[in-house]
Amino acid sequence: MTIPQNPLLNDRDVEFLLYEVLDAPRLCELPYFADHTRETFDLYLQSCRRFAREVLFPTYRPVDASPPRFEGGAVAVHPALKQVFRPMIELGVLTAARPADVGGQQLPLVVAMLAGAYLMAANLSACGYLGLTTAAAHLIQTFGDETLKSTFMTRLYAGEWTGTMALTEPQAGSSLADVQARAERTKAGHYLVRGSKIFISGGDHDLAENIVHLVLARIDGAPPGIKGVSLFAVPKRRPEGGRLVPNDVEVAGVIHKIGWRGLPSLAMSFGERGDCHGYLVGNPHQGIAYMFQMMNEARIMVGVNAAATASAAYHEALGYALARPQGRPLGSKDPRAPQVPIVEHADVRRMLLRQKAIVEGSLALVSTTARYADLAAHAADPVERERAQRLLDLLTPITKTFPAEKGFESNALALQVHGGYGYSSEYLPEAWLRDQKLNSIHEGTTGIQGLDLLGRKVVAGGGAALMALGGEVEQTIGRARRAGVEPAWCERLGASMSLLGELTMHLAEAGLRGDVERMLRHSADYLELASILVVAWQWLAMAAAAREGLARGASPAGFYEGKLCAAQYWFSTELPRAQALAALCRSGEDSYARMRPEWF
Amino acid sequence: MTIPQNPLLNDRDVEFLLYEVLDAPRLCELPYFADHTRETFDLYLQSCRRFAREVLFPTYRPVDASPPRFEGGAVAVHPALKQVFRPMIELGVLTAARPADVGGQQLPLVVAMLAGAYLMAANLSACGYLGLTTAAAHLIQTFGDETLKSTFMTRLYAGEWTGTMALTEPQAGSSLADVQARAERTKAGHYLVRGSKIFISGGDHDLAENIVHLVLARIDGAPPGIKGVSLFAVPKRRPEGGRLVPNDVEVAGVIHKIGWRGLPSLAMSFGERGDCHGYLVGNPHQGIAYMFQMMNEARIMVGVNAAATASAAYHEALGYALARPQGRPLGSKDPRAPQVPIVEHADVRRMLLRQKAIVEGSLALVSTTARYADLAAHAADPVERERAQRLLDLLTPITKTFPAEKGFESNALALQVHGGYGYSSEYLPEAWLRDQKLNSIHEGTTGIQGLDLLGRKVVAGGGAALMALGGEVEQTIGRARRAGVEPAWCERLGASMSLLGELTMHLAEAGLRGDVERMLRHSADYLELASILVVAWQWLAMAAAAREGLARGASPAGFYEGKLCAAQYWFSTELPRAQALAALCRSGEDSYARMRPEWF
Repeated sequence: MTIPQNPLLNDRDVEFLLYEVLDAPRLCELPYFADHTRETFDLYLQSCRRFAREVLFPTYRPVDASPPRFEGGAVAVHPALKQVFRPMIELGVLTAARPADVGGQQLPLVVAMLAGAYLMAANLSACGYLGLTTAAAHLIQTFGDETLKSTFMTRLYAGEWTGTMALTEPQAGSSLADVQARAERTKAGHYLVRGSKIFISGGDHDLAENIVHLVLARIDGAPPGIKGVSLFAVPKRRPEGGRLVPNDVEVAGVIHKIGWRGLPSLAMSFGERGDCHGYLVGNPHQGIAYMFQMMNEARIMVGVNAAATASAAYHEALGYALARPQGRPLGSKDPRAPQVPIVEHADVRRMLLRQKAIVEGSLALVSTTARYADLAAHAADPVERERAQRLLDLLTPITKTFPAEKGFESNALALQVHGGYGYSSEYLPEAWLRDQKLNSIHEGTTGIQGLDLLGRKVVAGGGAALMALGGEVEQTIGRARRAGVEPAWCERLGASMSLLGELTMHLAEAGLRGDVERMLRHSADYLELASILVVAWQWLAMAAAAREGLARGASPAGFYEGKLCAAQYWFSTELPRAQALAALCRSGEDSYARMRPEWF
Repeated sequence: MTIPQNPLLNDRDVEFLLYEVLDAPRLCELPYFADHTRETFDLYLQSCRRFAREVLFPTYRPVDASPPRFEGGAVAVHPALKQVFRPMIELGVLTAARPADVGGQQLPLVVAMLAGAYLMAANLSACGYLGLTTAAAHLIQTFGDETLKSTFMTRLYAGEWTGTMALTEPQAGSSLADVQARAERTKAGHYLVRGSKIFISGGDHDLAENIVHLVLARIDGAPPGIKGVSLFAVPKRRPEGGRLVPNDVEVAGVIHKIGWRGLPSLAMSFGERGDCHGYLVGNPHQGIAYMFQMMNEARIMVGVNAAATASAAYHEALGYALARPQGRPLGSKDPRAPQVPIVEHADVRRMLLRQKAIVEGSLALVSTTARYADLAAHAADPVERERAQRLLDLLTPITKTFPAEKGFESNALALQVHGGYGYSSEYLPEAWLRDQKLNSIHEGTTGIQGLDLLGRKVVAGGGAALMALGGEVEQTIGRARRAGVEPAWCERLGASMSLLGELTMHLAEAGLRGDVERMLRHSADYLELASILVVAWQWLAMAAAAREGLARGASPAGFYEGKLCAAQYWFSTELPRAQALAALCRSGEDSYARMRPEWF
């Protein structure tokens, strides 16, 4: 039994998304992307996917097996990571979507992200260092002064130094209002930072000569709560007298993560000896607002990572199911007949089609979201930019959560397809299952995303974002009708969108009455409902593009037939759940509102 | 922050199930259980739960951290397992439910299983050895001759030797028709066995002086397929001349399991040197039928294990949520107010209540199933025995699957409640999540259970089992109405049962027409539908008992209120899914039936 090499992502699917579903080359009509064409997109994609398959993926298993070591106060990463770190930077990953004036290639985010998805599917830990670094650089690019840019941003974008997000503290967790790290202004202009942070990914390592931590802390005398939190760039070693000197940033401990095992997650101490220099980014007390630029980018990256992790496992399961002979078709009772590959069993095909629907639905979702990010930043018309920004804001919690939550289910199915073998570390699906679990936690848990969607995003601007989404869905329905997609799917999606709109009005009214608890009680269910609809919208768009492809005789026809099967699956199996979820949200069902801690 | 000691199971809930929901002491009216009373039940429960908490649970983490070593052809287990092995046997675990004439205590299975659930929650690997041993002994007790009983059964029940199930072969997996191991009859009466087996739990270890493998193999000249498979007792060392000599049974390799890490899963070679003696159990070619006794017991034990594993994680998450301060209630904007325990957040309570509904619903389900097993074996009236056997057969695939599948979700929620900490091996939920994943695979995957339920169990005897279930549900509805449980719940459960009946008729008709593929296409969805209904039935029974408890002023009232909240949750959140699932099964939705391998 030979299992084929895992492609990580299906190239044909990426091509389909960019060129048949989203028409990404149209972005090149915008000035920012004017130097690009489909050919430059493909060049970048091709170099990333080749590197992912040939260089990066072979490092995944050894890196997972040997987590970073913490010795003598410093973290040493797996040697394989050192070998791939520089070549990854040379691919242009750090600056692919950034402007030319900071050394970037000005590629659309939708292209950069799909290329990045190959790398994440190959070795997500290796990508973690770079994702944090480019996001940290971007934060300084946007809000930092020229000194910060020349000192930190340039070295981050060059990959000479790496970056981190240092938000979370042990006593506060997700509650950023409770950040206690302190910053005392000195006469020299810098601040002395003091405090403990936890879960700092890439907080120490030996891949680069320096690390820039973006730290949330309170300037002495700042107001309590989130309105008193400022943002600082705090290097591991600070430039002083033309060289780098230690900056009183210490590793306090290593968290033994169950996945992402190439990327250390650390407890860090800043300023234990009173000598930790921090450099204010932007204005005082604006740290949370600034950090949300990095956080929102990171949330979308979580979605991409989740989709990529589910994709790698799905292709592994598919390869296994095509190769592994076992049993015979239902009704074939002759035990002397040869066994068939397990893909021939209906339940195995069900598990694979569910994975396909989740994986490709997730990839379409993250691509669509990235395209709105491109338009929000670079569309010619300010009205169009605002509209795209609304859609981006609305879709961010969904893009962060759906691939993470359903991706975990998809990863579990990939393991299940492997049967008893899947339960062993000799096969890869269990590792991706461990990796995936982080995505419902970091950068805001699923619970927090639900509150963000229902408590902020859908009600902001009088529901403008939801209306904009309705417009986009209508457009897709129109395209689907013209392409000859099943009218029932179009009708069901339209009806479900109306349902979501009515439900949102109903819940918003409770909020306007001041009953915030009632409004948000079922925010997790609301998020699930919205996710099912948004992914149904993606599947309708893919079904339309598939019908168009079949109509013009594009090949292979089987690729399009598979898309239509997966769309059918989603419309028959998932979308019908919308009704019960909407009824549940609307009902005000109060079991866990009533439940008291002592009743458990 | 002090997290309380994990109780593993809630004692009050076990008491509630046995004495308020199921009236277990009524079993003592039957001759087999006549020596027992509630007091003897409680004595056994008390000794097991104390041992589980004080002795066994402290071994869980070290055993998980250091899997068995395979050196010099033999497997050495963790030293902590050696310390607990004998004391566990002395608790009476191996023979609790067995008859006095084989040294047993004749306890009802429902009591033995709930006591066993504490042990499984404390350290499932340690329990694995004993579960396999008592099941192997039982198989020989039922089908073996006197020589086999005196040689093997007595030593197994005494815990001097341990047992295994050796069914699976590398090339056949779940397809037992493809078993290739051979057995050649010798003039001396024994057989020479030759073949390879895989995934043999407890296939080698250093806990006991000998191991008895129950091996499926084909006698030379046997017909092909499952009708040519026989069952053999094959010891690691065979008794010869008054001592034990090696029996040509070798460990071929160790599978690196991701959980259950105290119980080795092995590839085994039988008879490589042509000197492996096997002893036929029962008649030739009846091996599969015999094995199904052990398999069915094992399937129920999987359900118990899954419920126990989810229970341990749920109580860990509950303890954490009660102790961990973070954030403030919605609408409380004063950052100087103290943080509240996270159990105060609605979404955390949602995650906990969902776990409670799954865990306690699962424990009720396995208890109910075990009680039918008690009645099937020991009821006075043969009609009653037959009825109980039908219900046992019907419930077995559900009892095997629901706690495994929903328990995995519950375990993931326990990790999620712990936030970033849950993603580390410093905290226990990740270990239980790994453990739980096996339960959807071993002893017949979820896919196989779906085929068993819809293809065999509900249609056997003209639907007699489903009718019997309908009768039981009606009785529970009557009790609930009398107790004053919400009439809407009673009506909804009744309506859903009718829906299941109609759907089953509809699908059975397709089978009768010869369209087996159409009948079984949605067997996974059918199994999920049936599971939701059966667990709703359990929650209605618990709600009825809770109302009765409140009416008679039993304490603590909060315990009953919590039960009613969880029942409300199930009836509002899960039962409404029945309609869409039934419609899906009925629709004949054919996406994965149409899907071709090359379209993925």
